[in-house]
Amino acid sequence: MKKVLTFDFNNMMSGMIGKDGITQQQIDSQLANAQKAHAKVTAEAGQGWQGWMDLPYNQDKIADDIIACANGVREKFDTFVVLGIGGSALGPSAVFNALRHLRYNDLPKEKRGGPKFYVEDNVDPERMASLLDVIDVEKTMFNVITKSGATSETMAQFLIIYDLLKQKLGDKANQHIIATTDQNKGNLIKIAKQEGFPTFYIPDGVGGRFSEFCPVGLLPAAVLGIDIKLMLQGAKDMDQMCRTDDIAKNPALFASLLMHVAMETGHNISVMMPYADSLRLISDWYCQLWAESLGKSVDYDGKLVYAGQTPVKALGVTDQHSQVQLYTEGPFDKVIILLAVNNFRATVDIPHGFADIPDVNFLCGSTMNKLINTEMEATEYALTKAGRLNMRITLDSVDEYSLGQLLYFFMLHTAYSGAMLNINTYNQPGVEEGKKATYAMFGKQGYEAKKQELDSAPKKDQKYII
Amino acid sequence: MKKVLTFDFNNMMSGMIGKDGITQQQIDSQLANAQKAHAKVTAEAGQGWQGWMDLPYNQDKIADDIIACANGVREKFDTFVVLGIGGSALGPSAVFNALRHLRYNDLPKEKRGGPKFYVEDNVDPERMASLLDVIDVEKTMFNVITKSGATSETMAQFLIIYDLLKQKLGDKANQHIIATTDQNKGNLIKIAKQEGFPTFYIPDGVGGRFSEFCPVGLLPAAVLGIDIKLMLQGAKDMDQMCRTDDIAKNPALFASLLMHVAMETGHNISVMMPYADSLRLISDWYCQLWAESLGKSVDYDGKLVYAGQTPVKALGVTDQHSQVQLYTEGPFDKVIILLAVNNFRATVDIPHGFADIPDVNFLCGSTMNKLINTEMEATEYALTKAGRLNMRITLDSVDEYSLGQLLYFFMLHTAYSGAMLNINTYNQPGVEEGKKATYAMFGKQGYEAKKQELDSAPKKDQKYII
Repeated sequence: MKKVLTFDFNNMMSGMIGKDGITQQQIDSQLANAQKAHAKVTAEAGQGWQGWMDLPYNQDKIADDIIACANGVREKFDTFVVLGIGGSALGPSAVFNALRHLRYNDLPKEKRGGPKFYVEDNVDPERMASLLDVIDVEKTMFNVITKSGATSETMAQFLIIYDLLKQKLGDKANQHIIATTDQNKGNLIKIAKQEGFPTFYIPDGVGGRFSEFCPVGLLPAAVLGIDIKLMLQGAKDMDQMCRTDDIAKNPALFASLLMHVAMETGHNISVMMPYADSLRLISDWYCQLWAESLGKSVDYDGKLVYAGQTPVKALGVTDQHSQVQLYTEGPFDKVIILLAVNNFRATVDIPHGFADIPDVNFLCGSTMNKLINTEMEATEYALTKAGRLNMRITLDSVDEYSLGQLLYFFMLHTAYSGAMLNINTYNQPGVEEGKKATYAMFGKQGYEAKKQELDSAPKKDQKYII
Repeated sequence: MKKVLTFDFNNMMSGMIGKDGITQQQIDSQLANAQKAHAKVTAEAGQGWQGWMDLPYNQDKIADDIIACANGVREKFDTFVVLGIGGSALGPSAVFNALRHLRYNDLPKEKRGGPKFYVEDNVDPERMASLLDVIDVEKTMFNVITKSGATSETMAQFLIIYDLLKQKLGDKANQHIIATTDQNKGNLIKIAKQEGFPTFYIPDGVGGRFSEFCPVGLLPAAVLGIDIKLMLQGAKDMDQMCRTDDIAKNPALFASLLMHVAMETGHNISVMMPYADSLRLISDWYCQLWAESLGKSVDYDGKLVYAGQTPVKALGVTDQHSQVQLYTEGPFDKVIILLAVNNFRATVDIPHGFADIPDVNFLCGSTMNKLINTEMEATEYALTKAGRLNMRITLDSVDEYSLGQLLYFFMLHTAYSGAMLNINTYNQPGVEEGKKATYAMFGKQGYEAKKQELDSAPKKDQKYII
């Protein structure tokens, strides 16, 4: 296994940050819980909703089919659009942002080397209209991603796009849709078979937020020319590394133990702060994984726990000018996770000039590379000096392999943390109420009782409306 | 004054959400504090760091100069790039996103009607390199924005760009830079005079996060063809509306009172969740305003308070598939601010089809417009049913005038909240430590003692590094 990530937990410890820090005694007190969680997650690998733990091993086989399909798309289409929401959108977006040019869609075709790429994960009419203003649907391949085919947002997008394709292309419309869905169950596989769409399957036991290493994430990545086998290799190597329950050797487990203590001591916020624009959307992906997995009202014993830690997206150095004031002086309620990169894929020199202005001149002759990483270290120092919990994950460089390791690390970290909290990491009962209310408001059959409930809800008081 | 915003505070109240809600008694107990805060903010309008409260009145005069300059840029340049960070970047980005086409830079020139637009607010070398890959600097106008001219990130960008311009254009390089800075003090005004850059001034008493209604925000907006006088009119009308200290008529003050009670009762997180892609970056702008203004360790009496509430960005409906599980089932630690839009600027029909699949068919014949707003109401209902504090601000439509009102509302709301907390809303001492550490690491003159301090900091323990 290539060592490409470094996990530095020093600034979580009381020895570095003082009274808000974690003590060896607190670590010891949670060690058995962490090891029990590790045993559970490891024993259940591949079972139930832990199908995602098989992906680094079993997706190799279909990677060749994905690559072949992707090469066809790269050859024949100008644009590739993902229609999906939540886990179907966040992984593809994060990997695109990390591994392609930061202004990819602005590049001319020959420099881009692949189709333009869009991920549509909302049902804002202005957004759909603006997409249709800038793409030529006749030269676009759409990848509809939903396991059940019952995701209202994705299916609404699909209905709009497929209707448009049929208007323009008649019976060739089906050549512009690839469906990524369940192999046997649900609406989308039924529609795909009926209409003759090419399909890729989301394996059993793989939920949206754990789906990056199946065709949900792999097909868009391959269409972008990303080496998906190397990503899978990274995931596999991280999986192997984390087979041990020795916290000194398993970074995902150590991180879970520390986060568990942090949550127990009132740190209800975790900030993901990459110091690299390429890792910006890793925060969005992490926010879903962490929030939806751990935000649970009941535990396995049926006890009301209202668990969860609220993830926050930040970006270094940008948010030093927005959030760091709060992080250093506000409440002692958060853990800041810094993501750093040793080797950027470009070097930008800061030229000489303005020798008479010391506030400017001290930068001259240096590089942006040195500036961004120096500011990261300076912020880490300032947070630590202010006694604020922080940890740092450093990537040697951002590439397919390190990203595979990083994403899989966070999935394992989330799984261990859910097990330590004794909650169901894999369900999302809290989103059902909103779905049912939507169905009821739309007058969908079977939701008449919910409609009555809505109609009899307390009326709003005009006194509180301005 | 045109009524274009509606503020609905019903779901903050115990009558609607039950035991976590705010009671009339709690409102009464903070009323005097709110009115005192209002009196202070109103009395100090235009004084000290409250110069921003004069902007709706005194920027009218220079708006004509700004528009004239902007029209020249629109005529002569293909691209307009803002070099700035924090308040110099967040306002321009938010207004651009709200009031221009959502895929503006992807549009062909004739449909765009103005130059391509980029805001560079980081010092990531890959980002700078990628910008330079997609713009032609010879056809680009750069707007360097920093009050002091001592902002390392912005000045590094400026050094790189100006050097490149000089290489390409020789002594015509200065025709590609507009400086927005302090009229008298600092490095950038000195450089601007020396090099002959056109300049616009950031008035006294206007800090970065309160600068949208001065040239910082107005010039980029005008270059994009946005009606800046209408924005200022919106701000002015909100200012007038909030002259009263009657909370039933002053939405910014009522919001501050409710948020104050929420903070006092353990709600240390505020979520800004617009249900419109066009308002997505309003969240980023709000996050700086709220975090940097209220995140303070000491109050005016010198008491250690560690005040502040951590702002979180979310987007409806997208984050229903990411964050809402946590919001409905996790800890009772947050207030969710929903931003809704009544009239979108596009209507997208959902066509008929798939009558045999009820999960899909119930959407058919409706519109995306109805879907997004129904989901917003359904989420509001689900949050309320789960007993979670939430409020809703509804915009009749997103336009210059409503946006002017909305941004100014949040500035006043922040000012009142800072005054209620008895803290200095306008400073940011917590970012100094990181700046000093950066200077020291760069070996800047005058920071030798800080360098010694850094060198003598506790060494990291390898035991906590994996």
